[in-house]
Amino acid sequence: MTTCDFLKLARGAALGIAASLFIVVSAQAQNDPLPSWNDTAPKTAIVSFVEKVTKENSPDFVPEPERIAVFDNDGTLWVEHPMYTQLAFALDRVKAEAPSHPEWKDTQPFKAVLEGDMKTLAASGEKGLMEIMMAAHAGMTSDEFQKIVSDWLATARDPKFKKPYTELVYQPMLELLDYLRANGFKTFIVSGGGIEFMRPWTEQVYGVPPEQVVGSSIKTQFEMRDGTPSLFRLPQINFIDDKAGKPVGINEHIGRRPIAAFGNSDGDLEMLQWTTMTGGSVRFGMLIHHTDAEREYAYDRDTEFGRLDKALDAAALNQWTVVDMKADWKQVFPEK
Amino acid sequence: MTTCDFLKLARGAALGIAASLFIVVSAQAQNDPLPSWNDTAPKTAIVSFVEKVTKENSPDFVPEPERIAVFDNDGTLWVEHPMYTQLAFALDRVKAEAPSHPEWKDTQPFKAVLEGDMKTLAASGEKGLMEIMMAAHAGMTSDEFQKIVSDWLATARDPKFKKPYTELVYQPMLELLDYLRANGFKTFIVSGGGIEFMRPWTEQVYGVPPEQVVGSSIKTQFEMRDGTPSLFRLPQINFIDDKAGKPVGINEHIGRRPIAAFGNSDGDLEMLQWTTMTGGSVRFGMLIHHTDAEREYAYDRDTEFGRLDKALDAAALNQWTVVDMKADWKQVFPEK
Repeated sequence: MTTCDFLKLARGAALGIAASLFIVVSAQAQNDPLPSWNDTAPKTAIVSFVEKVTKENSPDFVPEPERIAVFDNDGTLWVEHPMYTQLAFALDRVKAEAPSHPEWKDTQPFKAVLEGDMKTLAASGEKGLMEIMMAAHAGMTSDEFQKIVSDWLATARDPKFKKPYTELVYQPMLELLDYLRANGFKTFIVSGGGIEFMRPWTEQVYGVPPEQVVGSSIKTQFEMRDGTPSLFRLPQINFIDDKAGKPVGINEHIGRRPIAAFGNSDGDLEMLQWTTMTGGSVRFGMLIHHTDAEREYAYDRDTEFGRLDKALDAAALNQWTVVDMKADWKQVFPEK
Repeated sequence: MTTCDFLKLARGAALGIAASLFIVVSAQAQNDPLPSWNDTAPKTAIVSFVEKVTKENSPDFVPEPERIAVFDNDGTLWVEHPMYTQLAFALDRVKAEAPSHPEWKDTQPFKAVLEGDMKTLAASGEKGLMEIMMAAHAGMTSDEFQKIVSDWLATARDPKFKKPYTELVYQPMLELLDYLRANGFKTFIVSGGGIEFMRPWTEQVYGVPPEQVVGSSIKTQFEMRDGTPSLFRLPQINFIDDKAGKPVGINEHIGRRPIAAFGNSDGDLEMLQWTTMTGGSVRFGMLIHHTDAEREYAYDRDTEFGRLDKALDAAALNQWTVVDMKADWKQVFPEK
């Protein structure tokens, strides 16, 4: 054997080893649709549920059109602390619009927003909050609002992570959405957040198209303006898609009962009840418990946003799966 | 050549001819996705539109997720004369429930319904009609209502055609729904009719799943009753999905603007405006004009149900396609 032959052989062998390694790794990745989940109970529960309902001729089989899964958004698919992203948006909008509203300088709760006085803002209560939300969300067409949201998201940054909000989504949940869809599920968002605040970006970020987003809404009005049809956003609440509103929103938009529901707070309690308490057929309920102060946040019963109290008790009673973020998630956010 | 040879040959030739005929016929059927449409202008317009928006690298190309088509139901997909099917349902419900409501015998407008006195019923106006509708549609859970609707449709018959209402759907429109879906469209129903009145059967009859049905609704309320979650139907209007309500319903449910809309009456005017008057991109609007007194009905500007007046004028202005049922449809109803 010449040196040259030997080198060729060695290179060939090395390439062969590299190729086999590659095959092993990619086969593992293929076999594991949830690589950011540790091999703990929640992952096992999800996979077991999906295998049950997709196995034909099994008593638990669910036909594809009925494989409806619903996901809360704030705190379930993306970060909700230190305040709901939509509130950060509203505060920024008030600041941006202030030049056109000189009266805001002397009128609460706008004055508090402009002065960054969160204490006074908080003291203005639900009524004050609603005034801020309406000022930020109404008074334009739906097309204009969509652009405002997209423009804001392109530049706004989360105060703790210094990243765009759309990057502060949970990698394990992105994998879960994909995994369910790969198994014939239709995935819906059912959020207390504004339906038109979410739709401009959910398709790109979560793979959930606008028609599969359910949320809170204000009233809109159809008008022909100078021969052009438009939908004008009015400063009146139309629907609050939270708590007991979630099953109502699900019924109104989807028209069938989901077989799986994912949430993280008491606002999701009724959605999980409606999904799972059907007596008989296999259903899946899951709560994300924020236990990871290091990588994200740790909060539950005593928090202001995303309180998880009654729903945590109900989870024990109803055998809903509770994700311990710190223990069950290998990775929290997507790598850029 | 023996007789036997001759017979073999003749049989072979005959089979050969039959086989070629079969190939010709089935190739034609395959080439024509709209066999119940005559080769008149509306069919050409539909096919031309679909070819334009599905041709990649063409300036009119529309990506699949944005191929949203919306269909009115009453008079567009099924018969709406001599009264909306849902009104026939409500009148039957009042009769069925009368034994539990002895007071109805002496109370209008219920008395008129029970006595078949349509004149007095009509005189009770919108208020009377609403009382009938609420008595028929509220006071039960959404699951119970779904069963009531399915049971009624299984036995009710149209007074003229003596057939189940779900057989009085338009064959050309069934083909159109299929044709659009085969070309990557998502088809939605956007009807003034009750959303929960349609959902129990639209998937089976039209191939439109519950989550793609938009309609009028009453309020529902989530309640835990004896540990069981239920949605209870309240006698209060939630949303009227008609006229200027249709673009609002489309925006609320679908969250994107359709590229094609199909209607038959003034109730569809705003939906067609919202869909087509966008300045620039290719859109499609169509009105079904009921011109066939022999095979179905002939009505337009002066009718009580499904009045087609303003929308017919708007069609001329906006180049919407108007189907002349008598001239453009080869067949009206599906063959059993």
